[in-house]
Amino acid sequence: MKVALLGPSGTYTHQAAEKYFEDLEPVFCSTIREVFESEVDAKLVPIENSLGGGVTDTIDLLREKDVTVTGEVVLPIQHALISKEETIEDVEKVRSHPQALAQCQNIIEEHGWETEETGSTAAAVEQLEQGEAALASEIAAEINEKNILEKSVQDRNVNVTRFLILNGEPEAREKSSLILEPGEDRPGLLHAMLSCFAGHEINLTHIQSRPTKEKLGEYYFFVEAEASGEKLQKAITALETYGGVQQLGEYRKAERPE
Amino acid sequence: MKVALLGPSGTYTHQAAEKYFEDLEPVFCSTIREVFESEVDAKLVPIENSLGGGVTDTIDLLREKDVTVTGEVVLPIQHALISKEETIEDVEKVRSHPQALAQCQNIIEEHGWETEETGSTAAAVEQLEQGEAALASEIAAEINEKNILEKSVQDRNVNVTRFLILNGEPEAREKSSLILEPGEDRPGLLHAMLSCFAGHEINLTHIQSRPTKEKLGEYYFFVEAEASGEKLQKAITALETYGGVQQLGEYRKAERPE
Repeated sequence: MKVALLGPSGTYTHQAAEKYFEDLEPVFCSTIREVFESEVDAKLVPIENSLGGGVTDTIDLLREKDVTVTGEVVLPIQHALISKEETIEDVEKVRSHPQALAQCQNIIEEHGWETEETGSTAAAVEQLEQGEAALASEIAAEINEKNILEKSVQDRNVNVTRFLILNGEPEAREKSSLILEPGEDRPGLLHAMLSCFAGHEINLTHIQSRPTKEKLGEYYFFVEAEASGEKLQKAITALETYGGVQQLGEYRKAERPE
Repeated sequence: MKVALLGPSGTYTHQAAEKYFEDLEPVFCSTIREVFESEVDAKLVPIENSLGGGVTDTIDLLREKDVTVTGEVVLPIQHALISKEETIEDVEKVRSHPQALAQCQNIIEEHGWETEETGSTAAAVEQLEQGEAALASEIAAEINEKNILEKSVQDRNVNVTRFLILNGEPEAREKSSLILEPGEDRPGLLHAMLSCFAGHEINLTHIQSRPTKEKLGEYYFFVEAEASGEKLQKAITALETYGGVQQLGEYRKAERPE
């Protein structure tokens, strides 16, 4: 299946797509906007990271573009130590994206390696020389036919990214994504809108405010709820008495790592 | 007064500080974390932009560091056309930060100017050559003794940034900033916490969720409320029955542009 996603080949986005799609034919784009505007119907985009928070480009484009959310996939970001060398003793220098280098300080200090920054984790693997290692996804090692010297070398294990699948086939309808547009600004309006979920005993798993880009202090809300079908529709009927509601889709809830 | 802020000299952050402090002695830092960790007590940091949304580094550092919010300042981002030349007819090329170039497409296309990207708007002014113009703050023209050929040349006028002043003297106590840490994850907990504001008829002007960095799907909330003193304390007493509350400070509400 052809799927538009953020490239280059071998990034963590690519690895997430391999995890979700059995028959993936990736179509690599260079920005999230290009993914949304790609002629390839099915798309995969990052929506939040456990350290960085919501991916604001994705949230703004979900509001702007006409797409349907049909699935999600959760990927623990685990950096592998990748090299042309056969053993870790032959490594003198390590290369990667600055974020990956920052997340693997312990192993770098333990071995006293030099470091070099690259534009992406995948690029670090493509450009490997003798005596060097890269910090990147396992899929980047496979694609570039390099050796994995050690798996999962990051300092802490709370680095998880969640991705949404757009315009695919939902496997089940367990949760849903919505855009809420408050019709006015008055005390308690957000509280009143959330009461539509609370009153129907619907759990919100995510809420993110974003500027409407019209005026400072005017926001819309990207919301995810553990509800679908008739139960969700009751909440939406109530929500629409307070403002606009854009239903982005209903889909299966992905398993979370412990 | 010595104030730590994001440099270099002549940025919009610098202009915001000039607007707020009568006797500013700026101490320029190169990252927001450096501003928070500066030995200079008073600080000025960006908190949100009407196009980009919340400044996540600032929000996370407000939760992490022991600081008091004592004021806010709102600055419309208006790019001036700055040059060594005396007239706009002598300009052939325009240089600035990619965001500023993107926000001034109309005037650039109208004159058919070449463009060149720079690291900051202030740097574009520092490096001006004959036949060139820069898009930057008016203060950058003053500092670098260049001519302002035209003021306010951006396409739309909704680009506004709000800054917080830390560890100063509050001029009044009209609004307040808070960090809310939900004690558990259960349906309706955010709704219940917001009911503490709604029940006391307190308007929330801003709410932003951020990951706790402990686990995917665990959030804390940065909240701003139009209340202070006794009224706010009642809401906080109620809030504390649901989770942790960190009071960041009470301060005067800045005027917003129309």
